[in-house]
Amino acid sequence: MSAASSRVYLAGPDVFLPAPQDWAARRQAVCARFGLAGVTPLDALAGEPAGWAALPEWRRIALRNEAHIRSCTAVIANLTPFRGPSADVGTVYEVGFARALGMPVFGYATVAAPFLARTLAALGEGARVDADGGWWDLDGLLVEQFGLFDNLMIEGGILASGGALVVDDAADRWQDLAVFERCVAAVAERLAG
Amino acid sequence: MSAASSRVYLAGPDVFLPAPQDWAARRQAVCARFGLAGVTPLDALAGEPAGWAALPEWRRIALRNEAHIRSCTAVIANLTPFRGPSADVGTVYEVGFARALGMPVFGYATVAAPFLARTLAALGEGARVDADGGWWDLDGLLVEQFGLFDNLMIEGGILASGGALVVDDAADRWQDLAVFERCVAAVAERLAG
Repeated sequence: MSAASSRVYLAGPDVFLPAPQDWAARRQAVCARFGLAGVTPLDALAGEPAGWAALPEWRRIALRNEAHIRSCTAVIANLTPFRGPSADVGTVYEVGFARALGMPVFGYATVAAPFLARTLAALGEGARVDADGGWWDLDGLLVEQFGLFDNLMIEGGILASGGALVVDDAADRWQDLAVFERCVAAVAERLAG
Repeated sequence: MSAASSRVYLAGPDVFLPAPQDWAARRQAVCARFGLAGVTPLDALAGEPAGWAALPEWRRIALRNEAHIRSCTAVIANLTPFRGPSADVGTVYEVGFARALGMPVFGYATVAAPFLARTLAALGEGARVDADGGWWDLDGLLVEQFGLFDNLMIEGGILASGGALVVDDAADRWQDLAVFERCVAAVAERLAG
């Protein structure tokens, strides 16, 4: 398969932006410039099983997103921290899902601060440090401290899949396209190689 | 395969508790009472590839957890809200991973409040409601509102996998075993059926 025909699933909480269709179209236009077909959760699913019509909307969305991922060659995940130190859990579910299918998974984020710094900022006065330099939250749970961008399963899965992680600070956390574009470029290069 | 020999992967942020080995042993004892072999991220991996020795610890952990999941018949995930409205992202990665492999995934949590209530509590003064009853965060992103326990991908994946979700309030969010035990019972019944 040539890179020109590759379908790439665009995972991320971007679907929660106002006018999500416009935003999806802008990201798909970036993909097209790199010869990739961007597929988003807002796209219709070709050949959606008739039986799904009886399911509640949220179940159809979940099944459709899984089917979209299965129809793609790679996944690009927006891992920008979402209402806390970590990425959106729906997006992370899709990263794990794609990784198990054996496809390359790429991630990007518009916040460069590492996981530990973000977690300590979120914990605030609730964090305490022990004699070995380990950090603990108010619930008495250890803070992961491997110098990574987020939980080790995410970055470990991305690297093992043959993908890459692109993180950089952007002026607008949710509307920036420059970091996304660098990630799309990395995907195009990987799929062409 | 009889339920008596079924290996079940125990996903969750429990690995961040003090004395995580003791906690893993307590949960494995519950599994054993139901004829299941509980496998945790703390367990050694039989036949771990020699090449992994050169990798950094966090990459070995990620690869080992993925291999543990592949060696199991089902996954039980601790989806108790973790440092925010949602479950631990490492656990959610593993839920998506297991779902893509086609195995039944079960979830449990010791907090019964639904996703919307937890999200609004976390957003506090930052949340605003529109004329249609939709809630938005300070970043201008919509709050998911399907009456579910967490992001729809998690609950959608669990149901589609043939698993189940068990949530109930427990006095101790991280040390409770009663809700976990109800989930283990559901897994044993499903695997025996």
